[in-house]
Amino acid sequence: MPFPDPAHNEPFLLTPGPLTTSEAVKRAMLRDWGSWDEDFRAVTREIRTRLLAMLDTPEGYDCVPMQGSGTFSVEAMLGSFVPRENKVLVLSNGAYGLRIAETLRTLGRAYTVIDKGDYLPPRGPEISAALKADATISHVVAVHCETSSGILNPLKEISDVVAAEGRTLLIDSMSAFGAIPLTGVRYAALVSSANKCIEGVPGFGFVIAQVSELEAAKGRSHSLSLDVHAQWATMNKTGQWRFTPPTHAVVAFLEALKAHEAEGGVAGRHARYAQNRDVVVAGMRALGFETLLVDDWLSPIIVTFFCPASPAFNFKRFYDLMKQKGFIIYPGKLTVAESFRIGCIGHMDAAIMRRVVTAASEALSALGVNDASPPQSSLKERAKLARKP
Amino acid sequence: MPFPDPAHNEPFLLTPGPLTTSEAVKRAMLRDWGSWDEDFRAVTREIRTRLLAMLDTPEGYDCVPMQGSGTFSVEAMLGSFVPRENKVLVLSNGAYGLRIAETLRTLGRAYTVIDKGDYLPPRGPEISAALKADATISHVVAVHCETSSGILNPLKEISDVVAAEGRTLLIDSMSAFGAIPLTGVRYAALVSSANKCIEGVPGFGFVIAQVSELEAAKGRSHSLSLDVHAQWATMNKTGQWRFTPPTHAVVAFLEALKAHEAEGGVAGRHARYAQNRDVVVAGMRALGFETLLVDDWLSPIIVTFFCPASPAFNFKRFYDLMKQKGFIIYPGKLTVAESFRIGCIGHMDAAIMRRVVTAASEALSALGVNDASPPQSSLKERAKLARKP
Repeated sequence: MPFPDPAHNEPFLLTPGPLTTSEAVKRAMLRDWGSWDEDFRAVTREIRTRLLAMLDTPEGYDCVPMQGSGTFSVEAMLGSFVPRENKVLVLSNGAYGLRIAETLRTLGRAYTVIDKGDYLPPRGPEISAALKADATISHVVAVHCETSSGILNPLKEISDVVAAEGRTLLIDSMSAFGAIPLTGVRYAALVSSANKCIEGVPGFGFVIAQVSELEAAKGRSHSLSLDVHAQWATMNKTGQWRFTPPTHAVVAFLEALKAHEAEGGVAGRHARYAQNRDVVVAGMRALGFETLLVDDWLSPIIVTFFCPASPAFNFKRFYDLMKQKGFIIYPGKLTVAESFRIGCIGHMDAAIMRRVVTAASEALSALGVNDASPPQSSLKERAKLARKP
Repeated sequence: MPFPDPAHNEPFLLTPGPLTTSEAVKRAMLRDWGSWDEDFRAVTREIRTRLLAMLDTPEGYDCVPMQGSGTFSVEAMLGSFVPRENKVLVLSNGAYGLRIAETLRTLGRAYTVIDKGDYLPPRGPEISAALKADATISHVVAVHCETSSGILNPLKEISDVVAAEGRTLLIDSMSAFGAIPLTGVRYAALVSSANKCIEGVPGFGFVIAQVSELEAAKGRSHSLSLDVHAQWATMNKTGQWRFTPPTHAVVAFLEALKAHEAEGGVAGRHARYAQNRDVVVAGMRALGFETLLVDDWLSPIIVTFFCPASPAFNFKRFYDLMKQKGFIIYPGKLTVAESFRIGCIGHMDAAIMRRVVTAASEALSALGVNDASPPQSSLKERAKLARKP
């Protein structure tokens, strides 16, 4: 697995999906597949099997791919697994948590939100208190890695209190699944998508759910297309997707799954991404940049950096300079401070992350920024965040 | 545009999408794109512009791409343009008509169906009578080409009576848009998808709708993901898709749109597909096969053939033999007679269709079928179908 591919002559995507995929993944798309044909049904079977095999404890779970972006799969999970009369607690600390709440509102499900703002993590005691205070809450929805800030939320801690209160946990593990282990986490269903830590191309997501939940979901969905039970039942009966699958993206994903296994599965993928993060964080800090999060909460998925205080810094120009140098970075999503993000996932290694740092250094020089340190107000903002106990 | 591509070494897909795409379309997927980046936003803009340019009268319409299969876009259209308290008349003569009814049921919209069974076309007078009889019906949904049978429904005739009764027409033009002109058809919205007559790869669909309908759809959708208004408003404001687009399929689609234009647009594409149909129908008839439909109703999209009466004929073996010879055909979907289908769309021309006929002839020989003519019961079934007046 060379980094970069010999054929690589395009910018690296330092974004949390779509991300940079390998040449082998992309070349898998150079063929057309009949979605009804047995050859393609075999691909679908193998994908489902391989995804389940990534779980520590796959017993009692099944995997259901779903067309569309990851958000389509999150909506499918919520509409399929939350009974219409039930109430949901959403744990939000960023855009993806808020999107879950918006989805529930659209679906007409009752919900309440623990809204921690831009990046503070939802913690066990406050979740426990909220559940004790409202016995009508049946489900809790958590975001595994909230890419708005890049925080890795304390999923095991969340899972423990949800289980202790006898409620059901649903997880948006979009940007984490395949690179962050789920050891000890108890959940009814989770969602991820093809173009995240498995390093496929975008076009579909997938739901991993307890078979008992899949069975109970019959007839519950608000949507024909996003009905997880119906997709699951059809796939198990015919081997086919219920409606036309994104065949090329599916076949590319199988190639990506094989590379994931060859790298050592979840542990191997985690190790590379963690190193990518460590290299870019150390290098950017050496340039004077500061991360939004203290180290305990940094994910190996994406890292938020404060914009420098220097009046010579201009994000649009910084973005364009980085792109010219071969790196597409990601704008920030904070309301509390100017920021930008650098993704650590995709077909990239530490050598490439060192080139990112060099490019950032050159871009600062070109802008005439001598000091990349953030405004005091940004550092004050960060001081709100405790270290993990 | 050579047929087949020099690099073509895989079966041709004689299916109504996914279909055989050109090597150039597939090779466009050999790059990763940041969905936020201006380069990709420019691709999205160009796709929308080019799709609108295919209309005879694009004034007052806009184009909204939507992630997922074509069915996702149909559901998005229904959920976005039919007010929740309204009633819909569905014109059904096959699986796709019935799916529209099922979607409306799932969405909780009131509806009634003119169900013509497997293939008989819905005609003006009966539609007119149904609308006169029920003033609460506000919308009529029609399927342009019903690929269950391959019939090209009389869309202009339908449009005329719907307009005469002052109702609103929505069209599932999935397998027809881009190859069948919409001359004189009055409609509020239509849907198609990337992997049909434009010859892209699957991964998204698109809605073409009157701007007034798009504006009125605000807040109406049952789904966050499938909200056409929200997708449209976000695209117009930011140039981005609301949620992660299938970037590779989108870029491939732009390549396909350029080839569509180079071939002479809708007229050019129609001419090639019609010739594909004429060649395969004439050739198969010469072998003794009979079409389900009389010529007046045959579409240039896909053709249904009756299975031969000969006891030596076995569809599974016929399918496998055809696949060995490089052609993936499509099983039938009729309840009234054994049948199979051969698609005329995709990156194929008359020379390839002649090879299809040769392959069918060889497959019959291998099976020991001397006479491919259908049972009398099948021909009696066909006799129900009148010629177009």
